[in-house]
Amino acid sequence: MSDGFGLDHLPYGVFSTQGSAPRVGVRYADTVVDVATVRPELDRPRLNDFMGLGPAAWAETHGRIAELVDSDALPAYPLDDVALHLPFTVGDYVDFYASLDHASNVGRIFRPDQEPLLPNWRHLPVGYHGRGGTVVVSGTPVVRPCGQRKAPTEEAPAYGPSRRLDIEAELGFVVGVGSELGARIGVDEFEQHVFGVVGVNDWSARDIQAWEYVPLGPFLGKSFATSVSAWVTPLAALASARTHVPAQDPAPLPYLAGSDRWALDVEVEVVLNGEVVSRPSYRTMYWSPAQMLAHLTVNGASTRTGDLFASGTISGPEPDTRGSFLELSWGGKEPFAGGHTFLEDGDEVVLRYSSPAPDGGRITLGDVVGRIEPARP
Amino acid sequence: MSDGFGLDHLPYGVFSTQGSAPRVGVRYADTVVDVATVRPELDRPRLNDFMGLGPAAWAETHGRIAELVDSDALPAYPLDDVALHLPFTVGDYVDFYASLDHASNVGRIFRPDQEPLLPNWRHLPVGYHGRGGTVVVSGTPVVRPCGQRKAPTEEAPAYGPSRRLDIEAELGFVVGVGSELGARIGVDEFEQHVFGVVGVNDWSARDIQAWEYVPLGPFLGKSFATSVSAWVTPLAALASARTHVPAQDPAPLPYLAGSDRWALDVEVEVVLNGEVVSRPSYRTMYWSPAQMLAHLTVNGASTRTGDLFASGTISGPEPDTRGSFLELSWGGKEPFAGGHTFLEDGDEVVLRYSSPAPDGGRITLGDVVGRIEPARP
Repeated sequence: MSDGFGLDHLPYGVFSTQGSAPRVGVRYADTVVDVATVRPELDRPRLNDFMGLGPAAWAETHGRIAELVDSDALPAYPLDDVALHLPFTVGDYVDFYASLDHASNVGRIFRPDQEPLLPNWRHLPVGYHGRGGTVVVSGTPVVRPCGQRKAPTEEAPAYGPSRRLDIEAELGFVVGVGSELGARIGVDEFEQHVFGVVGVNDWSARDIQAWEYVPLGPFLGKSFATSVSAWVTPLAALASARTHVPAQDPAPLPYLAGSDRWALDVEVEVVLNGEVVSRPSYRTMYWSPAQMLAHLTVNGASTRTGDLFASGTISGPEPDTRGSFLELSWGGKEPFAGGHTFLEDGDEVVLRYSSPAPDGGRITLGDVVGRIEPARP
Repeated sequence: MSDGFGLDHLPYGVFSTQGSAPRVGVRYADTVVDVATVRPELDRPRLNDFMGLGPAAWAETHGRIAELVDSDALPAYPLDDVALHLPFTVGDYVDFYASLDHASNVGRIFRPDQEPLLPNWRHLPVGYHGRGGTVVVSGTPVVRPCGQRKAPTEEAPAYGPSRRLDIEAELGFVVGVGSELGARIGVDEFEQHVFGVVGVNDWSARDIQAWEYVPLGPFLGKSFATSVSAWVTPLAALASARTHVPAQDPAPLPYLAGSDRWALDVEVEVVLNGEVVSRPSYRTMYWSPAQMLAHLTVNGASTRTGDLFASGTISGPEPDTRGSFLELSWGGKEPFAGGHTFLEDGDEVVLRYSSPAPDGGRITLGDVVGRIEPARP
């Protein structure tokens, strides 16, 4: 299908119509198809029970739904007539830092006189825990956060609304089948655990983050909101998007090596107030999705249905493929897109994602929309 | 009562007897009293539904339970006959760094030629998100984690079991009544939200942490396990433990100021293989519990029933009041307690907590027990 939501895709979400309870639906063209009757785990206000069933049930259910949709056997609603909800209850949220170009750009902006990449970066996928409780669905307004910020030139910190509010265009991975405490998920076991993929905008208040983050990492500069797409694209629908990560030097340690370092060919568009301002490509990411999950669990950390881990900002080598305003404006020094540096109140950002489909066309992943509201007094 | 578990205390936990379903009980002397019949929210395998009811219901329920316990009207089981479970489903887990002495010691150990405290430390309670999904109940064995570690003298990182496994003796606070996205919890609103207090051992693999933590903070060095006590002491039971935080210089910004900077007089004992090796006191902490929660939400981050935030390592100014082996052994250079530096396989650590009771005696908080098991191949 030309719009990327055909029978080979059918991403899952949670919707409600006026006066009805939230339940699972799939997106087909410009409609939401109600699949709550297909199996009991889909008659729920969250995808978690279904995601916990595992790859065999996911495949079988997709096949059944595709048949039913194809024969118009299920109720369908125009997208405009439904409300979309957060599709899954988020367990732990981990954010990685897997783009070489992003990490290098950030190093050049913040530490211009030093080696841009820190010593650990090429040895492990650097990551940290974010706030699972403030993951919100696409469309949720983002209120400008307040907090402490101190520019290097200022004597003392001051309290107030963030002046350097930013986006991070990312791709997120949702765990379906968890793992026990003490177990590890090997790089070749990814498909047994990961249900699907979402778009992610990891909103960031750069001034709050810059003042707080040493030595324990980002906290309030990130925890006010992280937006995810309303649609979860099953991993299986991205089979035609498989490609390979760039060469990794030095060679990764055995637990990060695996038999096939696959990546995903997902193109991203960053749209600011209706204008495309950047086109990052997930193809250029250094660390693969399976390497991120293997690293996350190598210490025996358990995982749960609904855990979300994201790639970190997707930035490519070209200036017009950078996935944050920090990079697009080079630390606020080089306005872009008609004078923009960081986000203004009223700005709307849409992240669009697409990838190759089996038929030679494109799959459209769920987009991530957010509009900035003024800080609250 | 001499053992600290009298009618004025009655901490809540979740227990089961052979063949029965987990439900809420209170600790009274050396027994667990089954309170599942007292109100429907207590006939649950987790405290969350009860904790969500709020301060009026908490007080009323405590009064009712105390009467029933006093008149022997509820079933009671010897502690040895029950299994204790994780008392609440953990939402987000945040760990602070609120001890001036701990932060100063860590600075001196890792950056001996620099100012021990980083510039932001006296302006805000530094904190970060940990892994909520790997919070485990006291008694759960702790498997030595594997991961990448690289000593400063080594050329490249290697994979293997942590060689610098450590404890962090902390106090944790459990949110009962959450707050909406965009709202802030003021320093004077703490009691409207926080249900109670748990003991926390934030196990730490110092070698993994040292290699991974720049620039996004601790990740796998912490996420393999965090132990909490099986008993949650209601905040109201600690009324006699109220004291004041030390002088704060510079004066905190207004959102961290509040009308009464109260702290808690909780004494901690760190017991290694049966021997008390340290006696930290929570009285010495720089940032107050209410300041931590106000900071956590100042950017509009929402909170949920079951969110846990902990103090960070409790260390006092004296060498025998340090709450981590990193400090007790001064970075591994000064063995203590008969030659210990970091944790060996088979070591058992017990954290004991007590505080003043209204009758002039002591309340005993739930302890936190963990034994180190060898790394898994």
